[in-house]
Amino acid sequence: MPETIPADSVGLVTPQKLVHDTPLDLDCGRALPAFEMVYETYGQLNAQKDNAILICHALSGDHHAAGYHSMEDRKPGWWDTCIGPGKPIDTNRFFVVAPNNLGGCKGTTGPMSTNPETGKAYGPDFPIVTVSDWVHSQALLADHLGIDQWAAVAGGSLGGMQALQWAIDYPDRLRHSIVIAGAPRLSAQNIGFNEIARQAIMSDPDFHEGRYYDYNTIPRRGLMIARMLGHITYLSDLSMRAKFGRELREGKINFGFDVEFQVESYLRYQGKSFVEKFDANTYLLMTKVLDYFDPAKEYDDDLSAALKDTQAEFFVAAFTGDWRFAPQRSREIVKALVKGRKTVSYSEITAHHGHDAFLMPIQDYMDALRTYMNRVAQGGAQ
Amino acid sequence: MPETIPADSVGLVTPQKLVHDTPLDLDCGRALPAFEMVYETYGQLNAQKDNAILICHALSGDHHAAGYHSMEDRKPGWWDTCIGPGKPIDTNRFFVVAPNNLGGCKGTTGPMSTNPETGKAYGPDFPIVTVSDWVHSQALLADHLGIDQWAAVAGGSLGGMQALQWAIDYPDRLRHSIVIAGAPRLSAQNIGFNEIARQAIMSDPDFHEGRYYDYNTIPRRGLMIARMLGHITYLSDLSMRAKFGRELREGKINFGFDVEFQVESYLRYQGKSFVEKFDANTYLLMTKVLDYFDPAKEYDDDLSAALKDTQAEFFVAAFTGDWRFAPQRSREIVKALVKGRKTVSYSEITAHHGHDAFLMPIQDYMDALRTYMNRVAQGGAQ
Repeated sequence: MPETIPADSVGLVTPQKLVHDTPLDLDCGRALPAFEMVYETYGQLNAQKDNAILICHALSGDHHAAGYHSMEDRKPGWWDTCIGPGKPIDTNRFFVVAPNNLGGCKGTTGPMSTNPETGKAYGPDFPIVTVSDWVHSQALLADHLGIDQWAAVAGGSLGGMQALQWAIDYPDRLRHSIVIAGAPRLSAQNIGFNEIARQAIMSDPDFHEGRYYDYNTIPRRGLMIARMLGHITYLSDLSMRAKFGRELREGKINFGFDVEFQVESYLRYQGKSFVEKFDANTYLLMTKVLDYFDPAKEYDDDLSAALKDTQAEFFVAAFTGDWRFAPQRSREIVKALVKGRKTVSYSEITAHHGHDAFLMPIQDYMDALRTYMNRVAQGGAQ
Repeated sequence: MPETIPADSVGLVTPQKLVHDTPLDLDCGRALPAFEMVYETYGQLNAQKDNAILICHALSGDHHAAGYHSMEDRKPGWWDTCIGPGKPIDTNRFFVVAPNNLGGCKGTTGPMSTNPETGKAYGPDFPIVTVSDWVHSQALLADHLGIDQWAAVAGGSLGGMQALQWAIDYPDRLRHSIVIAGAPRLSAQNIGFNEIARQAIMSDPDFHEGRYYDYNTIPRRGLMIARMLGHITYLSDLSMRAKFGRELREGKINFGFDVEFQVESYLRYQGKSFVEKFDANTYLLMTKVLDYFDPAKEYDDDLSAALKDTQAEFFVAAFTGDWRFAPQRSREIVKALVKGRKTVSYSEITAHHGHDAFLMPIQDYMDALRTYMNRVAQGGAQ
């Protein structure tokens, strides 16, 4: 809980809601008859409406990217490090828009929402969406806000994939695409980790084939395992070593299966607290969105061809200690852009924090992002 | 199934059993009143009894290291690549002994065995053993076989940890210690992965606090998740990419949660088949043996001090694509030995196969091991 709101915070914020009451066609061939999308905004849209930044969230993120909902909040929004007055994404000059994506569980239409056809929660009947579907729905949000062209679309991890897809799907509706700790598609190992998370959730007897809402229960154990596993892949071996080492909670081993090492305690806590605030069906959906993302697929695996019609300038950043989406994956994006003679800046930041580095106030990262955002503020790629 | 037994195979083999009917004190402070240990041998013990090699198995391994149990066997023992007539661990000159470790589920006393105090299976009451406990029980097997000194003790992964512990606990009972794809202790990340596997098993409602034998069930889902997770850590991102890429089983995505990518199919198969042949309580135990291994702990984290009384010569090998126990971990062992002026050969093999490389017929690896085993055959460190 902040005793006072820090001066460089966007302060207390209130989520807003877009109500879209006509059908939205989806990549899977189905349509959502209508949808609601929760979002937050920070800063002011200028008269020319050319200072808007779209922030795309990652797997377990949401629309609460910066600031506080109340003075009781323990923590600010997930990207508060980067968004605020005087911060790299400076709300003194940018109008920042952060939606919760379709399929989410924080207010936007998703598996927990009521299916108008049945009057009950969608649950497993909620369609599996794609990054393109998200981008399409975000474009409807832009229309609603009167934004013809984003100054930039930005995100980390799965959020970076949205920034990339935006440049492909709506070439003239963004000037800059900011892709941080992303990848052009998942590797087999990435998919494997997602599959284990899904199996953990779906094999939990409390999952009831996704209809656990009807049983007044949640697949608590499965979602906890999924989150613990995810969490390990967000950290690096080195950062875990620095954070926990082999520290024992009670200073000695007890020859039992209760928590002994600090790292066990940490992971269990992360898993348990996640279960209280996130929906398992949404988690499943998000892993599928990740698995399916592959813009080069319909271009014979030629990413450069997939990006050939993009008009945005790109900022790509990666972190050396990230083994989930290693710098090599970002370099694939950079190479494809360079091959296609697109304008791209690449920053490879030395940081041992793992994938989570994109959320952290690492000086070199803040400096690189700030410098690039100065460029965004000056226009470019119009 | 081999139509004919290959000429370089040890052929058909029959497990033997050591029955030890006096108590065995354990590191945890408890004692096993008695134990049985299943083992296999290949080759002939010579008259001087100085050509014996002890093979130590890893997490899910057992005493069946080479050859076949019957002509119906689909596969030979787990280290058949390395053990046989003319192979690197050449049974024409060595007498090879491969036991199943205490706590195992393949015949050696473990959680599935009858607890003489209750007349029922030990289950969760089986004591948590340590690498030192294993080494101690293996020394009793050596006594039984009349082997005062092993020509070498060898193993990969957790097996390599036993080879290291042998050199510490019984300095004069082995001439060579062969530590492949090992580590001087687990990192926080390693422990984290083990903890997730344990949570998956222990949170399965069919686990019944380890007493699932009494309920005629097994924690199938949890053990499957644990194995899938283990399996990902045995492979490298690169080897998974080479093996599966993003291949789809049906050539297209189906927007559903059934198996779509080949890697999902493979992991589910590995998980499911493991459940049929391995015991969950043993799996839990083995992960704890790994977590607890830390010979430097009682020497103020000075591994060199822990190794100061060793008399064996060491062969340490690691694989570049192994991220579970990366070469850096093997180099920690080598550095500690060099600091203590011990004799050590180190081979860092370029291989993209991940941790599982230690089981594979990689030419450079086979050559290095063969060359070292020639040295073992010539004596040394006596």
